[in-house]
Formats: sequence, C-alpha cells, structure tokens
Amino acid sequence: MSGKTGLVMPWEIKKQLGACTETLSDLIAVEEPLQIRLEYEKWGKWQEKDLVVTMRSPGQDFDLVMGFLYAEGIIREEKDLLWMRYCQRVKPEEEGNVIRVRLHGNLPVNLENLERNFFTHASCGVCGKTAIDAVSCQAENLPFDGRWKISADTIRALPQALDAQQTGFNHTGGLHAAVLYDASGNLLLLREDVGRHNALDKLIGAALRQGIALPENKIVLLSGRVSFEMVQKAVNAGIQVLVALGAPSSLAVRLAQEKKQTLIGFLKKDRFNSYSGWERIQ
Amino acid sequence: MSGKTGLVMPWEIKKQLGACTETLSDLIAVEEPLQIRLEYEKWGKWQEKDLVVTMRSPGQDFDLVMGFLYAEGIIREEKDLLWMRYCQRVKPEEEGNVIRVRLHGNLPVNLENLERNFFTHASCGVCGKTAIDAVSCQAENLPFDGRWKISADTIRALPQALDAQQTGFNHTGGLHAAVLYDASGNLLLLREDVGRHNALDKLIGAALRQGIALPENKIVLLSGRVSFEMVQKAVNAGIQVLVALGAPSSLAVRLAQEKKQTLIGFLKKDRFNSYSGWERIQ
Repeated sequence: MSGKTGLVMPWEIKKQLGACTETLSDLIAVEEPLQIRLEYEKWGKWQEKDLVVTMRSPGQDFDLVMGFLYAEGIIREEKDLLWMRYCQRVKPEEEGNVIRVRLHGNLPVNLENLERNFFTHASCGVCGKTAIDAVSCQAENLPFDGRWKISADTIRALPQALDAQQTGFNHTGGLHAAVLYDASGNLLLLREDVGRHNALDKLIGAALRQGIALPENKIVLLSGRVSFEMVQKAVNAGIQVLVALGAPSSLAVRLAQEKKQTLIGFLKKDRFNSYSGWERIQ
Repeated sequence: MSGKTGLVMPWEIKKQLGACTETLSDLIAVEEPLQIRLEYEKWGKWQEKDLVVTMRSPGQDFDLVMGFLYAEGIIREEKDLLWMRYCQRVKPEEEGNVIRVRLHGNLPVNLENLERNFFTHASCGVCGKTAIDAVSCQAENLPFDGRWKISADTIRALPQALDAQQTGFNHTGGLHAAVLYDASGNLLLLREDVGRHNALDKLIGAALRQGIALPENKIVLLSGRVSFEMVQKAVNAGIQVLVALGAPSSLAVRLAQEKKQTLIGFLKKDRFNSYSGWERIQ
C-alpha cells in the first residue's frame, strides 16, 4: 500500500463578491492526521510504541517521518532508521495515515526522556514539554569563520523559484513551503505542508534521505513566520542561513544569535531584514 | 508577583533596501514559554502536576489558561477553576512564566485520558495524541434554526475594527488575533498572540471570565488560517459563525459542515468565501 497524495482537494463554496453570490468549486488544502508507530529494540526484544499523531498534508510522508525523528533527536543519521512503511492492518479511514518505523537495533532509545504529559495546541512545537527547562537547544554553535558570504542579490532572488514551483500554495493560500537552496541560490528541494513545522521537517528529512549535506553552505527559505522551534530545528540540522517571508519571534531571534545563525525576515523583492549573523551577507 | 506584559520588544536589525544597508531598531513579537501547573483533588488529597508548556506572547495569561483548560475539556465552566496565580518559587528566568491553577475539589479529573506520549511540533494542536481516534470532536451540533441571520455587509465590515485595534500585529507582522463580535458586528473582545491557537484560547478564556455567552449569536474573526483544531475549539465553545482572513484546511471545513458551523475564509473588503453553513448569511 502506498501513501496518500494530494495537497489540495475541491470543495463547493459560496463566493460573495459585492452584492453577488456565486456557487463554485474551489481548491482547499488537505489536512489529515499521520500517526507514527515506532519499533525499537530494548533488552533484546522488539518494542512497539505509538509515538505521535501530527496533522499534515498527505504526501512525502517518509520525508516528514525522517525529518521529525531527526529533529526530535530520536535518530542521529539516516541509517538509524531501518525501514518505514504504511501500516496495512488499520481501519479504512486510517489507510495511508499510519506509518510504522523500525529503528536500528543498536540505537539507544530513551523514550522516557521524550515522553511528555499532555498534548498541545499551539503552533510552536515545544508545547507538551512539562518543564520550561525543556525549552532549550543543545546544538553547538554553527561555524562562523567568515569564509562563506552570500550576496544580498542572491537572497532577494530566492522567492522567484518559489513562485514558479509552489503549486499548492498558489492554488489554496493554505499551505506553507520550506525550500532548500545551495550557496548560489539554486533550488535543490521544496516541500509543502499545511503546518509550517511539518514543511521544515519534510525538507530536512528529504535532504537526509537524499544525502544532501545541510551543514555545507545551504540556505533555507520559509514561506511564513519563524518561531523558536523552527530556528531550533534548522540549527540542529546545521543550516547556517535561514530566510523567511514573514516575521521572526523574539525567542527565534535570540536563539539564532546565540547559535551564530544568519536569520533574515520580511524578504521582499527589493528588501529584507537581518536579525542576526548579518556578517554572512555581502 | 504579576505576569509579564509586552507583545512586542525592540531589536536592532540591518535593513537591506536595494543596495543600501541601514541599522535600526525594529519591533519584534515576544515569544516566551508559559508553564501550567495543575492542583487537583484525588482521593481526598491535593495532587500537583505540570500540565503543559506552551509558547505564547506574555500578557493576558489567565485568559489563556482558562481558555486552554476549557478547550481541552479539563474544566466545563469558569467556576471549575478555584484560582490561578503566578508561581513565586521559580528560577529568575521562569518568573512570570509559571502559573499555578487550583481546580475545584469536586471536579472529576482524569488526567490519564489527557496524557499523551510525546510532545509535538505541528501547528495544529491535535498532535501528541497517540491514536488517530483522538482526532475527533465530541461536541454537539450547533443550533441551526434559521432564526439568526447576518448580513454580508456586517461580515465584510468586521476587519475595520481589527485594523484599528490590533496594535501588535500592525507593529510586527508576527502576531495573530482572535476577535469577538456580537451579531451586529460590534467588537466585544480582542486577543493577540504569536500562536494562532493561543489567540483563540485567550479569547474564549476571556469570554468565560467576563461572563460573555459565546453560544448566543456571536461571531469570531481570526487573522490567519483555520485548522481543524481551531474549528474544534470554536465548536466546543458554541461559536456559530467563524470568519477568517486566511484559508481553512480540508478537515476544518469538514468539521464545520458536520457541526453546522458557518465557516468563512479569505475575508477581504469586498468579498469572502463561505465553506459551510452559508444559510446563516443574508
């Protein structure tokens, strides 16, 4: 069984324009739950655990799972994950929405550290951690030796490739994109999702699966705002330059500064703002 | 000790405009963790539990806590909560970021039902639930007797009040707003937050605390997109008309339709789209 696809679906709407009402079929962004079921070895026996349900746009689910497990520190490299597949023994409505993941037997898995006591409701990602101490980032500082510089022109040109390719967003206005570029601004990967954290997880997971080295002079563009946790994910993955069309939050800016990440927001055709690490910009 | 305030803070940025770089002080949206610590009675003894850490804009934290506990079904009405206060014995960096809440002793609290196994990273809110079954909504259908109708003009005029009052968003572009109106479009309450789910929780919590009856012909306007869980929160609170400046997701639309909620998206000065319950619109 393969996964679901389809970032968008049709829906009959009433469009009210001035005094006129029109009935028409419009495209809306698909949102469905994805459950990750983990298999891992403990004391010589295989254990199984339902890890998380996340609401996502169906499609590129294996990228999402890889990126999520990496961002949460459950795996450290691509080969820590032995295989992934869609569960076949599920209810009809769950088909294509449950992924079973087997971790490498040698991998130390301490799920107790990861367990949290409550589900969450915010758009940040650090929710559900039951101590403020958990809101931190253990990653090392990014390299900052001044050898890599990007021109402001390269940065301003990034959205052009996005405009051309981000089909789901163009159709519905309801999707977020995360885009990977090399140091010259060439587009390498693009991932979309109803959730902005998912889009970044998908991008990081896709890079891991395709053997693209994120710490080597890469740029990531985000279509929306930047929260603390998105900087955290990007820093963990070694991304030195993070650019967003929207605004960063205060904790996002502080973390980027602390970890020597270049953080740019409000990117438009003729302008952008640098919040940290502007020494990488020419 | 009182809570923190301040939706925005200054930050020195480099503004790149064409070929010019300018250093200036800009305002960014403040994001800080808020921890909710629950006290409840079980078998005649007071128990304490760290419930959740959510990333939020400081300010109106009691509204947020009230709305969150209500949305998650831990309390059913305002008086289920005996008191809330900021913890005083915390580390300096946690000051104003930990709230202790005491529930009514008679309130049955089954935290096991609420406990989930993982923290989350998506912007949806149903994450962290470890079964897809958990992604559902137990609320009853909203009343739909045709007696309450709103004019399209009233709907189109809603953002005017928002433009005038949403100061944080105007300054940073990094905040979401949730706004409550009566049936004639008069603004009753406005709440802002870096998280769109938080903004809605704050609004619902504020209405509960102020004794404003949400099920009685109220309209809620959201500044961004609408996820499944935001419809879920609104339906649980009895809000019949949910209007957004952004796009709704597919599951949001389906839930609104099932629960007979009027869901409007892409609201602009001269137009909007109705996804469900358009019979309430004149």
